[in-house]
Amino acid sequence: MAGSTIGTCFRVTTWGESHGPAVGAVIDGCPAGLALSEETIQKYMDRRRPGASAFASARQEKDAVEILSGVFEGRTTGTPVSLLVRNADARPEDYREMASCYRPGHADYTYEMKYGVRDWRGGGRASGRETAARVAAGAVAEELLRELGVSLCTFVRSIGPVTVPEEACDWAFAQESPLRMPDRESEARAEAYVRETAACGDSAGGVVECRISGVPAGIGEPVFQKLDAALAGALMSVGAVKGVEIGDGFAAAGALGSENNDAFACEEGRIRKETNHAGGILGGISDGDVIVLRAAVKPTPSIAKVQRTVRADGEPVMLQAAGRHDPVIAPRAAAVVQAMAAIVLADEMLCGMHARLEDVRGFYAGRPGD
Amino acid sequence: MAGSTIGTCFRVTTWGESHGPAVGAVIDGCPAGLALSEETIQKYMDRRRPGASAFASARQEKDAVEILSGVFEGRTTGTPVSLLVRNADARPEDYREMASCYRPGHADYTYEMKYGVRDWRGGGRASGRETAARVAAGAVAEELLRELGVSLCTFVRSIGPVTVPEEACDWAFAQESPLRMPDRESEARAEAYVRETAACGDSAGGVVECRISGVPAGIGEPVFQKLDAALAGALMSVGAVKGVEIGDGFAAAGALGSENNDAFACEEGRIRKETNHAGGILGGISDGDVIVLRAAVKPTPSIAKVQRTVRADGEPVMLQAAGRHDPVIAPRAAAVVQAMAAIVLADEMLCGMHARLEDVRGFYAGRPGD
Amino acid sequence: MAGSTIGTCFRVTTWGESHGPAVGAVIDGCPAGLALSEETIQKYMDRRRPGASAFASARQEKDAVEILSGVFEGRTTGTPVSLLVRNADARPEDYREMASCYRPGHADYTYEMKYGVRDWRGGGRASGRETAARVAAGAVAEELLRELGVSLCTFVRSIGPVTVPEEACDWAFAQESPLRMPDRESEARAEAYVRETAACGDSAGGVVECRISGVPAGIGEPVFQKLDAALAGALMSVGAVKGVEIGDGFAAAGALGSENNDAFACEEGRIRKETNHAGGILGGISDGDVIVLRAAVKPTPSIAKVQRTVRADGEPVMLQAAGRHDPVIAPRAAAVVQAMAAIVLADEMLCGMHARLEDVRGFYAGRPGD
Amino acid sequence: MAGSTIGTCFRVTTWGESHGPAVGAVIDGCPAGLALSEETIQKYMDRRRPGASAFASARQEKDAVEILSGVFEGRTTGTPVSLLVRNADARPEDYREMASCYRPGHADYTYEMKYGVRDWRGGGRASGRETAARVAAGAVAEELLRELGVSLCTFVRSIGPVTVPEEACDWAFAQESPLRMPDRESEARAEAYVRETAACGDSAGGVVECRISGVPAGIGEPVFQKLDAALAGALMSVGAVKGVEIGDGFAAAGALGSENNDAFACEEGRIRKETNHAGGILGGISDGDVIVLRAAVKPTPSIAKVQRTVRADGEPVMLQAAGRHDPVIAPRAAAVVQAMAAIVLADEMLCGMHARLEDVRGFYAGRPGD
Repeated sequence: MAGSTIGTCFRVTTWGESHGPAVGAVIDGCPAGLALSEETIQKYMDRRRPGASAFASARQEKDAVEILSGVFEGRTTGTPVSLLVRNADARPEDYREMASCYRPGHADYTYEMKYGVRDWRGGGRASGRETAARVAAGAVAEELLRELGVSLCTFVRSIGPVTVPEEACDWAFAQESPLRMPDRESEARAEAYVRETAACGDSAGGVVECRISGVPAGIGEPVFQKLDAALAGALMSVGAVKGVEIGDGFAAAGALGSENNDAFACEEGRIRKETNHAGGILGGISDGDVIVLRAAVKPTPSIAKVQRTVRADGEPVMLQAAGRHDPVIAPRAAAVVQAMAAIVLADEMLCGMHARLEDVRGFYAGRPGD
Repeated sequence: MAGSTIGTCFRVTTWGESHGPAVGAVIDGCPAGLALSEETIQKYMDRRRPGASAFASARQEKDAVEILSGVFEGRTTGTPVSLLVRNADARPEDYREMASCYRPGHADYTYEMKYGVRDWRGGGRASGRETAARVAAGAVAEELLRELGVSLCTFVRSIGPVTVPEEACDWAFAQESPLRMPDRESEARAEAYVRETAACGDSAGGVVECRISGVPAGIGEPVFQKLDAALAGALMSVGAVKGVEIGDGFAAAGALGSENNDAFACEEGRIRKETNHAGGILGGISDGDVIVLRAAVKPTPSIAKVQRTVRADGEPVMLQAAGRHDPVIAPRAAAVVQAMAAIVLADEMLCGMHARLEDVRGFYAGRPGD
Repeated sequence: MAGSTIGTCFRVTTWGESHGPAVGAVIDGCPAGLALSEETIQKYMDRRRPGASAFASARQEKDAVEILSGVFEGRTTGTPVSLLVRNADARPEDYREMASCYRPGHADYTYEMKYGVRDWRGGGRASGRETAARVAAGAVAEELLRELGVSLCTFVRSIGPVTVPEEACDWAFAQESPLRMPDRESEARAEAYVRETAACGDSAGGVVECRISGVPAGIGEPVFQKLDAALAGALMSVGAVKGVEIGDGFAAAGALGSENNDAFACEEGRIRKETNHAGGILGGISDGDVIVLRAAVKPTPSIAKVQRTVRADGEPVMLQAAGRHDPVIAPRAAAVVQAMAAIVLADEMLCGMHARLEDVRGFYAGRPGD
Repeated sequence: MAGSTIGTCFRVTTWGESHGPAVGAVIDGCPAGLALSEETIQKYMDRRRPGASAFASARQEKDAVEILSGVFEGRTTGTPVSLLVRNADARPEDYREMASCYRPGHADYTYEMKYGVRDWRGGGRASGRETAARVAAGAVAEELLRELGVSLCTFVRSIGPVTVPEEACDWAFAQESPLRMPDRESEARAEAYVRETAACGDSAGGVVECRISGVPAGIGEPVFQKLDAALAGALMSVGAVKGVEIGDGFAAAGALGSENNDAFACEEGRIRKETNHAGGILGGISDGDVIVLRAAVKPTPSIAKVQRTVRADGEPVMLQAAGRHDPVIAPRAAAVVQAMAAIVLADEMLCGMHARLEDVRGFYAGRPGD
């Protein structure tokens, strides 16, 4: 099966390996007329870029994006937007000695079981490098959503044992934080933890939270294409993510119905929920409130510590990872989580325009045919 | 967009409303030659059936399944299997007084925002009744998986504050437990909690865990169709689910890389992981180990307690839910979670047969054309 | 692969075998608010119904349609519309003696090669009976299109050697004609031909033409989802169809560019083509003109004449078809061709609402979220 | 909707405009282990390349293909194969004066109606240049098919009034013919016709025929994904194609059932059809015989003759096409038709491996999981 495509109306296909010539994305279905430039996309890329902080891989990639199609005179034309990101600082040789063994926590073993072969150069397709293409596509989605009044904000809610309390959250601060944490004090503690962890040759995990504002009520499709289902699938498709929550998530499982239900009220002529335990989605369809998602990001599997593993022939070996890795991946994963959320939401908003006959009729009323 | 279809090779489409004439499913892509009867499917339906215990809705539905196509002389023919479940004990009138107001925690408001109208009879399409069709389709998936050596086991890991400790888990016990809990002592405490909660006019949530055994290494597709991504999306598509985990899930976010990585070893000539923090999936592809999933199920939104809400015109009203409801939905949700996991896995296993050229070539070698 | 679903936004799934209990269709993605009743659908079914004329199979089927979901208080709700047609006059025993041999021109052999088994009762899934479900789904599509100002007209352009000349075409006449021909004199000649053919134990083919009016310019998607590509695929999916044309079709291959190009002109402020060799589609996108399609329908493969064939074990046999068959299938195929065209067009019109950012922005401008 | 993707298991996405920086394709789902190099793909590109004969556009494009992903050490890895073709000889300025008017027979008007804007540089996405990406993707499909014993042969059956009679067809000759005609004498007459036509500032059409050998019986899916339906849709998606036939095609509409049915016989223990009016497909599933397709290709719409048209503001203008064009497009279209047929067949063959439970069970029997 072909697994590198997501979306129906706003459809993204990515391609590329970590240490091949390039990675890229094709975005098909983006409406015509959206202002789009390489500079705009670059801002999104910089959020995910390695080499940008002490807590990220030392691999030096500018992640310069080239727009190859779909944009004419500064605006999208409605045809596929092809984005190309050359791999500038690939060093496949770093991985040669690992080519014959399976790195714990990585997809080496499973790719080889599936395909019979694998591209051992830094994880190949399974590498985090693949997410550069997602972020490039997410940039287009987010620019589109901005035109529709929707904005996304993503930050790191926790790293290892350090969790930012709800009341301390300062979203503006998170944008500047190298750890993407929304609270200076928590960040300081998290930073100390990450440094200590890295010093021990180990790595840390964390929880990423994404909040989406401005989504009108009525987005999402019943049953299998529920908005939360699509978002959960998209977030879990990020390599390092092991859990996804919406609204109160797992905490809801311990709550009472009377606590978890959000009462409806009418304020200034508009119906709103008084609370938002649901996280902005009821029955798989947006309720007009802020959408709240969380993703559990596992600790980077590449660690300096020596690990037990085996070679393809079953021979046990002790492995010490070469390559350049992040002591904590959550801060860079935030950009990827946001990209995936944007892609899903753009898709569901474009797909959701024909739910009512009156809207479809109104749309075509001014466009008669013979 | 059409949201009632899931899967590519093993494709399930469901239809039907809670208090309409029937619900049903069409399963397309099931291989020919699978033994299938209404009796077999019925066993799966009985796991989810209302009216079956003190902890489930008093609605009396036999959930009798009729096979309308795709089976000939006791076996599937490869063409679509259409399954029909008549709604026998529908009582739409119970809901008439709620037709004009939005029940908290339900999809009344969001469906109306989306479609401009809604079928107010017991939640319509958004009702848990819709999941009867999923379980019917899941039965076909599970029968298929059994032929491929794969088995699923689902139970309730926690209800409200009561969690079954790993070491106490007795899967056989869970099959007989009305609360689907795998431990007699935990079940007793959970039962007391649910009775107390129900007596207060309230409801409880819980966590459902699904374990899938016998899945070979190599199932799942890279990037967006990762096995864990597809499973997460499918589980989150169950109405009451608010969070999904794979393997250690959110706990992994707090672990160190050296703790969370599963070392590879070779036992009796076969490569295996020494631990299973990953939950049987690495890089989105199965690693041959048991797949471990958990879903957070919210407390039933329909409660006897009086709740604040508004009517469509914004007028505040106090609502006391009529209809027949479950004090805790997690035990019945277990059957639905298992059905969704089975549908996803059947799909990915059928889709995953052409990953290697040598396999495709071998398949067609004995089938020459002119 | 699952082959019984067509469409993206307006998605139709059919199921059912010729001599099983029923056939049916699920239509997902139909906008909410469309007036729909069993009576309305029945009118479409009657166009295709067997037993209705001397030129159709004597099988007596009322083709009574039951709406099982998706309609509430006389209008669609936006959720899947499930339609059920019971097989009333199934006579599987007619086919038992043919169960072991492959009927020429039928799919007996190919289904058995594919699936290893087949439902030999009258062609099973490959029977023309399956098209009853298409017509039921097409009825919903056509009712939707009517609301959007689009109407379809289908007739039989030729039967055997008898072709209705363009200038003689009288669409109203075709609606009443048992052979669906738009000209009394041609019909008389065709009728004589069919009677003679049938008397010889043989069958006739024909060409069906479908004209679609009122389609606005701009419908269809570039490259692989071109409107003509989707229509061609859908028409060719009708069992008996062996060729499809749009506009001048094969005649265009013999024309000069200067003859085949349609000049643009401006009449009363509106841009129009002066001719319509293109058949209403340019570059895969509708141009606002009438869409003209033609499908070549082969002669009914079931004939009374004795035919040579073999049994599954290779043993040669002489076969004389039992069962009840049409001496010419084109007149009934007209209803199926129209249904398929309507389904494709409904799908592309619903999918085509987000081509321009300004339209998407306008749509969501009045639906703000928090 | 996103229209630039085709296929389910072997999935091709193309992108790119005629006079933008590049065109390209992403092929997802190609099995791992297929030998693939830029040199191999180049051979296919050369069949379609402009500038290669007196009868093709003078635009000079080497159509050099760069493989950007999915190939490692000379073989596919199972991950997406990204192919890039830079536009070397783009001359957008040739089209500036036509930017404000609608060229007859082109998609200028329809793209503008759909998207509100268009890339007027040589047809943009609607240009025949887009088919370079199809041919690149088709090369991968055809290399895969060759490994499965399937081969394709495509030629020009007719140009204008010149048709090659069946008995004169010499496939080897067609490979060398600049007009791709399989008969020296017909080619000479066609060449004279094309020269004369071009001298008059006009263009010619033709019929392309594709024959596919080695396809085993059993390929294709019932109902909407019939092999002939998928092929018809794919061929009609080629810009210049206005009609598609399978087997006897439109001639079948005039035949008797007894003439059109292909009798089955058993030769040397293998069941075969005695004739092939069906064109190798029965009930939408391959019957093991040669698959025979024909596509009607319209005359090139760009002609030197002056034509009437209008500008966007409705003002009538006389247009004389600039740019570099083919006097007959059918010979180059042959490569595109073959590419599309190969893509569809590769997809259906990969998707068709799980039709029988026994095959699926056998496949997984040697791959146990825990």
